[in-house]
Amino acid sequence: MVSIPVLTLKRLPQYLELLQQFQREGQSHVSATRLAEITGVHVTQVRKDLALTGVVGVPKVGHKTAELIEAIKSFLNWNDSSSCFLVGAGHLGSALLGYQELSRKGLSIVAAFDTDPALSGTTVNGVKIYGLDRFANLCRRLHINIGILTVPSEHAQATAQMMIDNGIVAIWNFTPVHLDVPEGVIVENVDMSASLAVLSHRLAEKLHHETKVERSH
Amino acid sequence: MVSIPVLTLKRLPQYLELLQQFQREGQSHVSATRLAEITGVHVTQVRKDLALTGVVGVPKVGHKTAELIEAIKSFLNWNDSSSCFLVGAGHLGSALLGYQELSRKGLSIVAAFDTDPALSGTTVNGVKIYGLDRFANLCRRLHINIGILTVPSEHAQATAQMMIDNGIVAIWNFTPVHLDVPEGVIVENVDMSASLAVLSHRLAEKLHHETKVERSH
Repeated sequence: MVSIPVLTLKRLPQYLELLQQFQREGQSHVSATRLAEITGVHVTQVRKDLALTGVVGVPKVGHKTAELIEAIKSFLNWNDSSSCFLVGAGHLGSALLGYQELSRKGLSIVAAFDTDPALSGTTVNGVKIYGLDRFANLCRRLHINIGILTVPSEHAQATAQMMIDNGIVAIWNFTPVHLDVPEGVIVENVDMSASLAVLSHRLAEKLHHETKVERSH
Repeated sequence: MVSIPVLTLKRLPQYLELLQQFQREGQSHVSATRLAEITGVHVTQVRKDLALTGVVGVPKVGHKTAELIEAIKSFLNWNDSSSCFLVGAGHLGSALLGYQELSRKGLSIVAAFDTDPALSGTTVNGVKIYGLDRFANLCRRLHINIGILTVPSEHAQATAQMMIDNGIVAIWNFTPVHLDVPEGVIVENVDMSASLAVLSHRLAEKLHHETKVERSH
């Protein structure tokens, strides 16, 4: 398996989303140029990215939309379903339990865990919630590799450690905490705080600039 | 207002999270070296980042934890509260309505909108849901600048356009769709699909590699 640049990996879902939209609109073929126009990625880079999936386009005709969709899905392993556990069934955790996009992207949450005894035994968005004391046993029995971390910040590190101790090798971290993990354990962060920081600051900059421009007139 | 590098902006919430943890543990001072060790960011860069907030550390003692927390919060504008609207009150949207972290980070969702008539008039996690036909009027009346986009992919572009037509200048985009917006409109993406693509691929790579190593023994 060739190691793929992270930026290519991150662009593929975006192409996939567009291709599925084109397919719904009845477009049987799509060119790299068209994808480049919409995404703002340089056409040479789009061609390189698509080439990695093994699909070859026809000059002046482009790629078959359906074929390219299948190639990207298969490349991302999104046709297979990986089972995972989620720890922290609060607002964000519960939302992810019901977020159907995940199962369309190869991730199936088979159980969730929470310290709140009131949640234990209940079902949230179709997924059963267990107490944390059941984690070790279930994780090993079901050979779970992937853990989704949606606990409050103060419990993030300890929970991640518990996951790792029980065989989890890939953590999808939704907390803003930087996790300290042994070498070989994969952590992928969805950092909403970082994104919000950029949004707030860019907006403040824009509004500040506009006020200055108004004043100078 | 000085334009701040995006990577600095993205690191600040991470420092803040750690500082708040140190504060809970009763640590009155913290050094840039300590922050560097935990985050993996080079200490020179940590110092540069912190300097932007205007707080000066004392050699061999470090920064006052409480002072640094306040400086970062104020720098990120997280002490002020910006009002925003959310469009798309499905699973992910509803979750964000109840996600208390947002209000601690200066973002207050004052109303939500959905095309589903069954949702209209209901309250989800304390926020009232309106039909989309109410968006234009409320947006202009309340002078809302920020819109959170949590609609299904196929409606992302049209909904973003409607937001912009009614005065929204900053969109927090949770859909995997690349939005085409006029110059000057700020889009910040929380791209869970891209993150999941990286996670899936790195895990597949790791498991594949381990299988090969086992076979070669």
